Order: sequence, then C-alpha cells, then structure tokens
Amino acid sequence: MHKKLLIVVVEPDSDRAKSIVDGLRQAGDHEIRVMAEQAGLARQVASLQPDVVLIDMANPSRDVLEELALASGPSERPVAMFTDSTDEQLTRSAIEAGISAYVVDGLRPERIKPILDAAIARFHIMQRIKAELAATRAALEERKVIDRAKAVLMKVRGIDEEAAYALLRKAAMDQGKRLAEIAQQLVMAAGLLGK
Amino acid sequence: MHKKLLIVVVEPDSDRAKSIVDGLRQAGDHEIRVMAEQAGLARQVASLQPDVVLIDMANPSRDVLEELALASGPSERPVAMFTDSTDEQLTRSAIEAGISAYVVDGLRPERIKPILDAAIARFHIMQRIKAELAATRAALEERKVIDRAKAVLMKVRGIDEEAAYALLRKAAMDQGKRLAEIAQQLVMAAGLLGK
Repeated sequence: MHKKLLIVVVEPDSDRAKSIVDGLRQAGDHEIRVMAEQAGLARQVASLQPDVVLIDMANPSRDVLEELALASGPSERPVAMFTDSTDEQLTRSAIEAGISAYVVDGLRPERIKPILDAAIARFHIMQRIKAELAATRAALEERKVIDRAKAVLMKVRGIDEEAAYALLRKAAMDQGKRLAEIAQQLVMAAGLLGK
Repeated sequence: MHKKLLIVVVEPDSDRAKSIVDGLRQAGDHEIRVMAEQAGLARQVASLQPDVVLIDMANPSRDVLEELALASGPSERPVAMFTDSTDEQLTRSAIEAGISAYVVDGLRPERIKPILDAAIARFHIMQRIKAELAATRAALEERKVIDRAKAVLMKVRGIDEEAAYALLRKAAMDQGKRLAEIAQQLVMAAGLLGK
C-alpha cells in the first residue's frame, strides 16, 4: 500500500470504528470514510469508488453478509470482512461472494495492514485470472462467429473459405470495424434474410 | 470441514506445534502429521497427499517462503501459512505463490478452524476458475487445430470445407479418437510431408 488509498469502513460501533481508523492511519496516509450504517452502502460505494472496503460485523446473518458483499462490489475492489462468527457456512458464503479477506475474530489495529495487503494482492490475482478467462472466452466466441459467417458466405455465394475470409476482412477494413463484429452482423442479417 | 482431513503441519517450535495440533483437534477429528523441519516437505507432501498443509514460520525470508509454498503444492491443495512478519512484499509473494490463507500474527488455536474453512473455500473457488480457464483454452486450441487441419485437407485434396470436416469426422470415428486429436495428427503429418 504505497499509494494513498480511499477506504470505506463499515462499522456500527463507534469505539471499534475509532480503533480501525487508528490502525489504518498507522498503516499509511489513507483517506478514510466511516459508515455507521449498512443502509446506503451500495450507493456510497458507487459514488465514492473506494480502493478498498472494510466491513466489520459482529454476527452477521447470511442474508446480511451477502447483501453487504454485493453492495461493496467485490469484483471491482478488494473487500475485507471482519466478523466474530466462526460459522463454516458463513465463511464459505463470504468467500463465494468474492470477499478478498474474511477474518474471524482478528480485528486488532496492528493486524489491519497485513490483512489489507493480502486482500489487495488476492484481489489482483483474481482480477488477472478473471480477465484471462474473459479474453479466452471472447476469442473462442469470435472464432465461432467468424466460422459461421464464413460458412454463410461460402454457401450463399458459392465461394471457397479463403475467398469468404477475404470478403469479411475487406468489409471490416472498409468499415473500420473488427472482423468479429462484421461476422456477427453478417450472421444476424443472414438469419433475418433466411439465408 | 465435515469429513476427516489429513493435515500436514510444518512447525519447528514444539510448543507451538502442540498448540496448533490442539486447535486442530478441537476443530474436528482430523489426522495430523507434524513436521519439525522444512527439509523433505515436498517429498512428504507428494507421498502423503494431504488435504491441507499448514505452515508456521516466524520470519521466513522470501526464498524460504517461496520454497515452502512450492513444496506444499498450493495448486493441488489448500495451503495456509502463518507468520509474524508483516512485510508487504512477503505477503504479496505468498499470495502470488498460491497460498490460500496468509495470516500474520494470527496463530491462536481457536482461530485455526475459521482460517482453514476460509482457505479451503478459497482453494475450491480458485480451482473452479482455473478449470474453467483451462477448458476454455483447450476449446480454443482445438478449434484452431481443427481449422488448420480442414485448411490442409481443402488445399491438398481440393475439396470444400464441409467435405474436409466430414473426412476428419470419419477418421475420428473410425479410429475411436477425438476430432481434435486426429486434426492435430494431420497437421503434424502434413508439416512433415511438406504439404
């Protein structure tokens, strides 16, 4: 945590909030917003776009936990959750909801920095692998749609694969669009035209 | 942790080892092997195939940490690492090495169960997304090699795409192999034959 972070802290208990803020201040020069209430978290997070969300809940129900996880946007930023509840099912729910650090009974000021470090590192790894998955899926989908478009052209115009590919490429260049985009439009249009 | 787990504990300090084993016993009826030395960890892990590895190291160097992470096989099982060192770079190295739980200054018997729960849940999520990535990559690679094989057949035999695909399919069925495998063999052979 070298750069200055904007951290949203959700903590209903004002003493604990103070202790968390102290811990964060010791960890670095961060901008901190404390929310005493869970209500409105999603709106606050959407408007502030914090770098990290830190939630402390003594004994959340599973519904509350899932609501908080969702509201804090764990796929867009690291979210660390502190709780006193050692329920195994709750732990699993939190992690499946995308929480980067789920810490039971571990909220002491001096432990906050390493937990945030770990949450941030874990979040980045998840981001990386998710981006890789999205890119690979997109490449596969593009390949499929380009294949379909080539097949349409080959059938309708009675040309071979190379000629079909050349047509798609030329259309893409002429229109300044991506090959996959042209292919997608062609497949859609061919469907409408009953080709 | 409902089922009985085989847990390898790496702990040089015998008092701490006892305390960890006590914590694990409270958490459930698990089979536990304590190793006082790091040396031979990879061999032990390979032969025991534990469900979880738990490593406690007061102040590991980055090299030792990475060696331990590698030896414990973090892509095959959850690995939890406990340390007293709050170094940010070390935390990041541990998480990038695939450690499922990296806990600074948090080794108390009653905290072990929730940490293992979280490590196991996190490990399964990583496994799931990695498997998804591997499957998507494989599908993309297969599609590429099938395309290449079709193109070889179309060129060498002067046939159209459908006929080329039909040939590949028939060869796959006749030999009881997957289409992608036949395509791969054809592409390789065509390369050797200079086609």
